[in-house]
Amino acid sequence: MKYELYYWPGIQGRGEFVRLALEQADAAYVDVARGKNGEAKLMRVLEDKAIAQPGYAPPLLKAGSLHLAQTANILFFLGARHGLAPKTESGRLWTNQLQLTIADLVEEVHGTHHPIASSLYYEDQKDEAKRAATAFVRERIPKYLGYFERVLARNRGRQGVLVGSRLTYADLSLFQVVDGLRYAFPHAMRRAEKETPRVVALHDVVRRQPKIAAYLASTRRMPRSENGLFRRYPELDA
Amino acid sequence: MKYELYYWPGIQGRGEFVRLALEQADAAYVDVARGKNGEAKLMRVLEDKAIAQPGYAPPLLKAGSLHLAQTANILFFLGARHGLAPKTESGRLWTNQLQLTIADLVEEVHGTHHPIASSLYYEDQKDEAKRAATAFVRERIPKYLGYFERVLARNRGRQGVLVGSRLTYADLSLFQVVDGLRYAFPHAMRRAEKETPRVVALHDVVRRQPKIAAYLASTRRMPRSENGLFRRYPELDA
Repeated sequence: MKYELYYWPGIQGRGEFVRLALEQADAAYVDVARGKNGEAKLMRVLEDKAIAQPGYAPPLLKAGSLHLAQTANILFFLGARHGLAPKTESGRLWTNQLQLTIADLVEEVHGTHHPIASSLYYEDQKDEAKRAATAFVRERIPKYLGYFERVLARNRGRQGVLVGSRLTYADLSLFQVVDGLRYAFPHAMRRAEKETPRVVALHDVVRRQPKIAAYLASTRRMPRSENGLFRRYPELDA
Repeated sequence: MKYELYYWPGIQGRGEFVRLALEQADAAYVDVARGKNGEAKLMRVLEDKAIAQPGYAPPLLKAGSLHLAQTANILFFLGARHGLAPKTESGRLWTNQLQLTIADLVEEVHGTHHPIASSLYYEDQKDEAKRAATAFVRERIPKYLGYFERVLARNRGRQGVLVGSRLTYADLSLFQVVDGLRYAFPHAMRRAEKETPRVVALHDVVRRQPKIAAYLASTRRMPRSENGLFRRYPELDA
């Protein structure tokens, strides 16, 4: 069985958290919307009335007869199947909790360039974005990264990962967030990273995983752009 | 063992989704921050360096030696323990997926009165809030409620609930959202509810559950206010 991933073509977006897990797991998957008639296929699945358990929005993952949506939910599933989460219930809950906190951070990143409405262009909410990004850069980046730094410091697994002593999907996701924040807010991140050496080190650990390194060097990894989640608008990076 | 719930005192907020599950389960719990020195106790847990797996933000649930955070994660745990979710992995994932979609909606509700920053007063982002709420009311309420209406229509369990034929924590959460939206956006909801009779019926089903009805009539249920998640600012309800 090949997994089928459905996500908006052309951007990393939230789909990238799923891609990183699939790549690290060396799982067979098709990135459907990047293929021929990709967007039409994505829309067809979103609107398919035969799916009893429809997703609200991409990313969607088809795994045999299962249709899954919501990034953290898909990762919860993949983590258990592919050894990217602990086997114990408490370990799975802790990994899920970290992933949900990453999801909150990601939502706030989106809010820096779309504070008013997702349906409006950036250009139509630029002034508001500037105010939102100022607060985000000053208050939220240090608070979130400081939290993950504390989690890393308190983990007795001592392998520099978030959960226990083995890599989980939460590590992959934190890598993606650091990577994205560096792209979107290079100045702010230069300051913030000084206070969070463990977070920086984890980013490097993930980047050097053989499967991840191969993925990042491939054309499967899309370039960042100002259509994605993490956007480089210099006016938002004080 | 009594559960200990930690949430900001004085408001329903995100803690209410956990309270509703605890009440429906008839679980023994202490709502710690509502007791004496409540806020100090909450802050102490948030800052406790002895907790190896700290939460980023309330709600927090202490269950024996487990410290859990993130609303959907706490509910995932409680759902399994108290029969408020299916026993199968696929059923648990589907319930979780619905809960995460509810969480996204809740986050957007928060964004209608705090589009720029959580750290600023409403009064300092009132103009932006008006723009954000206009889009939310016009586009997002119908889209989200329409989604849950579809989920209810496609559920072959035919008991009017979201998942299978038994009540889950996702039903309790959707009740809370409908209730909150009615408080915050009475005009918009009057229009939206005409298109979503199944969602309205589910709200009534939950409201009439004996444990929930008793809870809602008790002083444990806090009144809504303009300090909470769902706020009635007439200027935001076109």
